Amino acid sequence: MVNYVIFIGAGNLATNMAKALKKTNYRIIQVFSRTRESASTLAKMVDADYVTELAEVRKDASIYIVSLKDSVLTDKVAEIVNGKPDALILHTAGSISISVFEGYAAHYGVFYPMQTFSKMKEIDFKSVPCYIEASSAKDLIKVKQLAEALSDHVEECSSEQRKYLHLAAVFVCNFTNHLYDVADCFLHEHQLSFNGLLPLIDETARKVHEIKPGEAQTGPAIRFDENVIHMQSALLHGHPVWQDIYNLLSKSIHENNKKLPNP
Amino acid sequence: MVNYVIFIGAGNLATNMAKALKKTNYRIIQVFSRTRESASTLAKMVDADYVTELAEVRKDASIYIVSLKDSVLTDKVAEIVNGKPDALILHTAGSISISVFEGYAAHYGVFYPMQTFSKMKEIDFKSVPCYIEASSAKDLIKVKQLAEALSDHVEECSSEQRKYLHLAAVFVCNFTNHLYDVADCFLHEHQLSFNGLLPLIDETARKVHEIKPGEAQTGPAIRFDENVIHMQSALLHGHPVWQDIYNLLSKSIHENNKKLPNP
Repeated sequence: MVNYVIFIGAGNLATNMAKALKKTNYRIIQVFSRTRESASTLAKMVDADYVTELAEVRKDASIYIVSLKDSVLTDKVAEIVNGKPDALILHTAGSISISVFEGYAAHYGVFYPMQTFSKMKEIDFKSVPCYIEASSAKDLIKVKQLAEALSDHVEECSSEQRKYLHLAAVFVCNFTNHLYDVADCFLHEHQLSFNGLLPLIDETARKVHEIKPGEAQTGPAIRFDENVIHMQSALLHGHPVWQDIYNLLSKSIHENNKKLPNP
Repeated sequence: MVNYVIFIGAGNLATNMAKALKKTNYRIIQVFSRTRESASTLAKMVDADYVTELAEVRKDASIYIVSLKDSVLTDKVAEIVNGKPDALILHTAGSISISVFEGYAAHYGVFYPMQTFSKMKEIDFKSVPCYIEASSAKDLIKVKQLAEALSDHVEECSSEQRKYLHLAAVFVCNFTNHLYDVADCFLHEHQLSFNGLLPLIDETARKVHEIKPGEAQTGPAIRFDENVIHMQSALLHGHPVWQDIYNLLSKSIHENNKKLPNP
């Protein structure tokens, strides 16, 4: 049996997921995005139609994958679900409860792939940890089938747990990337290249595969090397927010360390 | 000609560097550390003697590699250099100027390997970017020989530039690792495993090999998804410092984004 799928949203996550789904026996028949450019680009990639108005979304698909900005999903849920009583409606958001669909849809669930997606870089979806949840045991089977067609790492997870996973993802991905960005910006200001940092960035990531991050901590803050801390903070005087980041993270590293038993 | 080397300090960096140096034609004859355990452990690894008093350090080596906490190096420089007029004295610190040796030593320099080192995890030193500097052109040749015996990525760099490289290293390594640690701690509080984050951590690091970090930014803060930002910040109410980190980094991501030209 072929499952017909419609993507509501054509952002980074939807693009990567749709491209991966195209390689399975699911068939994507339509893509919706309010941005014509995004809708048409993704639709073309996966050989589907596209629409830019929610009212024009076909009602005869068996699965709808809703991947919109969280506030938009919350606002538009009634309109999205409307007229699709037998379909399975899924969202992909880390921080939205499954209950967002309650009272609107009969069959619904969550498919949260915990990864960072860009349109310009293709991800091997098989290795993406995917956290799923559904409105009933029967619907869960369907969500699981979809998830296992895409990924080798599928786990059930409650909405409550998913909130913490998403928060953790924000720390290790979004915030980490921002630290890379800050470093890139001030190296650039001093005519130095970011590329020299790549072996260090890689090793920092690799290390926590073997050692707990709490034990892997190095640098002036954990040694409480005050001279270095003051001097480095002063280097950032032209960038008050970056200086605040420097001071706060140094303080937090030092305080975490004090809480540990002495070695 | 065999070069006889003495390590002043037996911490993470010294341990990794000494182990790598042992595989070259340099010969390590002694290790100093005030901590007997550290001194003897490293000395044993590299078949050298060890001492725990600076006054007992042999004076007949050709190269001394000083790898101490920055404040200790600054305080002890006279004692370290004393009685070794022909030797080459190097330090390995990112943030200390080469001038720390001025007026004390005749031949000196800096060898700064930009990597994160743990005693429990061996690093392939060949891939570590090493930044060098010396008191004279003649001494630079010696520092370069040593550096090139250890690493395939050796670059000259002034003390001023090295300060910014070290600051960048603190951001992308020490601070990043601390974000991993915070995530590990609160996942643990909620009976969730850190290991599920590893594919995301790896991809976040891998991504900036291909895309500039400023373009790789994803997540609620760059989308300015206020509902999610407030909800996630509230999840951290029991940990004021982590909540401050969340709020400050979210604000900084959002502000950086506003400065960019519209896409």
